[in-house]
Amino acid sequence: MSDQRPGVYLALVHHPVRDRSGATITTSVTNLDVHDIARSARTYGVSKYYVVTPIEAQQALVRHILGYWREGGGGQRVPERANALSIVQETPSIEEAIADIARREGSAPTVYTTAARSNFDATSYEVAAAELRARKAPALLVFGTGYGLADSVIARASVHLAPVRPDGYNHLAVRAAVSIILDRLFGDAGA
Amino acid sequence: MSDQRPGVYLALVHHPVRDRSGATITTSVTNLDVHDIARSARTYGVSKYYVVTPIEAQQALVRHILGYWREGGGGQRVPERANALSIVQETPSIEEAIADIARREGSAPTVYTTAARSNFDATSYEVAAAELRARKAPALLVFGTGYGLADSVIARASVHLAPVRPDGYNHLAVRAAVSIILDRLFGDAGA
Repeated sequence: MSDQRPGVYLALVHHPVRDRSGATITTSVTNLDVHDIARSARTYGVSKYYVVTPIEAQQALVRHILGYWREGGGGQRVPERANALSIVQETPSIEEAIADIARREGSAPTVYTTAARSNFDATSYEVAAAELRARKAPALLVFGTGYGLADSVIARASVHLAPVRPDGYNHLAVRAAVSIILDRLFGDAGA
Repeated sequence: MSDQRPGVYLALVHHPVRDRSGATITTSVTNLDVHDIARSARTYGVSKYYVVTPIEAQQALVRHILGYWREGGGGQRVPERANALSIVQETPSIEEAIADIARREGSAPTVYTTAARSNFDATSYEVAAAELRARKAPALLVFGTGYGLADSVIARASVHLAPVRPDGYNHLAVRAAVSIILDRLFGDAGA
């Protein structure tokens, strides 16, 4: 962060998320989501990227990946990757991520959610980007794996970002949606 | 394609591309790049996504992936994925992709390249998006794996798109760069 504004944070949620039928499930952490989203988050100036899973073995998997890149052979081989992964942290819940941000920043974040579905009143990217440029509190952008965030998560958020593609085919990988949304919100100058 | 304009095409190049030192190499096809980029390309109305590799065994790998999703069990389980993969085609070279587009469209495409490096005169996304909206010829967007397209490929292109992030950390996954660039060029209404 090169300025004095509160930080921007990102969470990738593995629980509670929806399956194809809308039921609430827990998805598995993938190595790929850790890497790709860390690289995109780092590119756009995100302060920390939380990988949210309540499953202890999955949290350990995240720590294992991070250890290889932070202390093991990966970081020497590809230092840019180690740089990106330096912002990743595993955490058991969205609430814990929010509490961690509050500890770091001294105030709780404004929570932004995204959904491919459009059943909530949505804020446009233009409006959200302007609000973020003028922010006085930290921001947390929350993304769901599987078939998207559980409605309970979306309902508690302050800002519901519009679907990336409201019409037509809408089956982007979460990795792609994250990178597009970061670019729309921070593409001019970073978070 | 819902309009009568010439199509937009995308190529992911595995040769000739650069390694970390700038030498020309051939990278391996990854299942992930096939899937993620097909989904992003389909989302933004791309007519066809060419996976470019001169290695026959790698072309066969692409056909194997596509077969599972087009005719095998995958397509029944996740029809949106089969839909995305329907636009994928393996091809041995960029020249073959260009020839295929010329056969389909009746005229050769305008070739757009991208690079994280900024050592060529670059066209802004705003200008490129406007030109693409008014296009009279098909367009081919060419992306490199590894450490980017070989200079010989970039030098032959008609349009050099600007780096996604000209300043600071720039180590996006090619999958992320593709999705961001498609959104910048076609985010309003599709290709």
